[in-house]
Amino acid sequence: MTDGLEILPVRGIGEIVAGDDLAEVITAAAPWLADGDVLVVTSKIVSKAEGRLVEVPVDGEERDQARAAVLESETARVVARRGPTTIVQTHHGFVMAAAGIDNSNVDRSHVVLLPTDPDASARRLRDDLLKRGLDVGVIVSDTMGRAWRNGQTDVALGAAGIEPIRDHRGETDPYGNELEITQIAVIDELAAAGELVKGKIDQTPVAVVRGYPRSGIRDTDDASVLLRDAASDMFGLGTAEARADGLRQAAQLPDGPEAALPGNPVDPAAVDRAAAAVADYLSRATTVAPAEAVPGSGATAAFHLSTLDKSPTGFMHLGADAHRFRAALAAESIATLSLPHEDGIRLELSGT
Amino acid sequence: MTDGLEILPVRGIGEIVAGDDLAEVITAAAPWLADGDVLVVTSKIVSKAEGRLVEVPVDGEERDQARAAVLESETARVVARRGPTTIVQTHHGFVMAAAGIDNSNVDRSHVVLLPTDPDASARRLRDDLLKRGLDVGVIVSDTMGRAWRNGQTDVALGAAGIEPIRDHRGETDPYGNELEITQIAVIDELAAAGELVKGKIDQTPVAVVRGYPRSGIRDTDDASVLLRDAASDMFGLGTAEARADGLRQAAQLPDGPEAALPGNPVDPAAVDRAAAAVADYLSRATTVAPAEAVPGSGATAAFHLSTLDKSPTGFMHLGADAHRFRAALAAESIATLSLPHEDGIRLELSGT
Repeated sequence: MTDGLEILPVRGIGEIVAGDDLAEVITAAAPWLADGDVLVVTSKIVSKAEGRLVEVPVDGEERDQARAAVLESETARVVARRGPTTIVQTHHGFVMAAAGIDNSNVDRSHVVLLPTDPDASARRLRDDLLKRGLDVGVIVSDTMGRAWRNGQTDVALGAAGIEPIRDHRGETDPYGNELEITQIAVIDELAAAGELVKGKIDQTPVAVVRGYPRSGIRDTDDASVLLRDAASDMFGLGTAEARADGLRQAAQLPDGPEAALPGNPVDPAAVDRAAAAVADYLSRATTVAPAEAVPGSGATAAFHLSTLDKSPTGFMHLGADAHRFRAALAAESIATLSLPHEDGIRLELSGT
Repeated sequence: MTDGLEILPVRGIGEIVAGDDLAEVITAAAPWLADGDVLVVTSKIVSKAEGRLVEVPVDGEERDQARAAVLESETARVVARRGPTTIVQTHHGFVMAAAGIDNSNVDRSHVVLLPTDPDASARRLRDDLLKRGLDVGVIVSDTMGRAWRNGQTDVALGAAGIEPIRDHRGETDPYGNELEITQIAVIDELAAAGELVKGKIDQTPVAVVRGYPRSGIRDTDDASVLLRDAASDMFGLGTAEARADGLRQAAQLPDGPEAALPGNPVDPAAVDRAAAAVADYLSRATTVAPAEAVPGSGATAAFHLSTLDKSPTGFMHLGADAHRFRAALAAESIATLSLPHEDGIRLELSGT
């Protein structure tokens, strides 16, 4: 481990415009930059140098419409919405409010987009500095909100010449316990450390971390390894959005043969939980109590629902109650085949 | 802003046991500690000093059962589960895998719980150091996973003598734009910076941040302000859990008068989305196409569903289809009153 780090602000960067050579600008402002340092560069000046600005009307409804159009073009998918806040996954894979589009530190007739490829931006800056004889790590950082915790912190959007993750898996502590899951996202921690000496409004967009060991870096290291894809993310969708998704799944539960039954054994505890969730309805006079579920291999578990009221409305209630029960079973990952017949409805159950 | 920071490891802390005086241990190991420094202390040594260890069997099923029982006692609510991973909200309000319970850097017959009140722990350590004539900020840190991003970073569980959030709201940038939302969780960034010089397995559980301006600190400042309550969190529940919750809501959609209708105007676009979500089913021969929704103030919008097949199974299908449609409308935040009658089902709609 290191003997200690210094986190140094780079003053006097000034205004950056499209086409500016960041390696030139940064080395001019920080002639003291040295081999082994890690540069933490706010993404906004990278975006400005790369011309990632979009012109928007300065006010009125036109401004709102133009900003909404920019947001849509930067959005791969909407993750969550609440009031004026829209959290999206960008085409890069970042989950950020408003796709990271920013209208601070830019004149009112423009908004700033994230760099197209922050890893490529970091690599380019590192290569430009290498040409000047300086071997430094580069992190392109931005401010992000988090789930569960108030306030924002800076994280790494792009990186080059620095190991993104310190992996402790497989190491053994002094007690002989093997560390199981610890993978430290060090480039995010370096970005956060850099933020502590940067300013939001006083134009200090670059910090230098000195003393961090960059041993073992590879040319292929970049910040994209920190991106978790939606499929493997346990929080890939906002809670309200996922609840609505569940209701839509209930709306689309198929009847009949198209309800493909994988035929796995049914967990009796899951059936009990589902029955409890619809107990209010199944205990009504419109339907008799469901038969016992018969767990077994394949789709041998079943319920039979019937109604005491053999009128049209009685059968309609039975149809709705059967669908309720199927939704409750689906919530417990139990698939059902619905088989209505003249006397009632037979539900065949199987695990998914 | 600061002119630069130093992040310094505190070596030679050694093993901490219940009853140890952390102020004594830390000042002995870091006699160079000075006024204005910020101490970043790994929560594990705070827990050990406070005796927050639980004895568990060293192996076998008994060990798993004991650990499960400890997890349950530390859990306020389960946020998400996938395979062996359980993410919970602790009684403190932290959202963490396994409630922050740790079995590394402790002998195999014990697991370490989080401190009971990390803010109080930080305050106590700060007060003990004040008694020794040292005015330092204290952060109690731990390693946490995040939504959307791989890898973990250190954050602040507790804090004293340091402003937890740097609030930029209302400030104006050089272009005259007012900053709207930026509140930087600086104690999390300080915890992350400290992690960079601490070791996971080489027993460097304390770091010092030197040079960070602690102006404007108040006695009431603590890390609990960073906790977002589940109700205001857009990610308060795992995606799969929230989807299952939506399915359960579908199972519990009440019929009849108990379906309280708030009577707000209905968004026709939301009705269209709901109709699209059940189009497959409503287009079947079992039911006729739904009547046009009539938007208006209060619960004047309605659908009428009827079946061409006036047999028991036809009515059962109609009941199920009506429930599908109601689930799809609920997904769009539209409440429905279901009124079955001899000829079909009338659904009265209202916004929620």
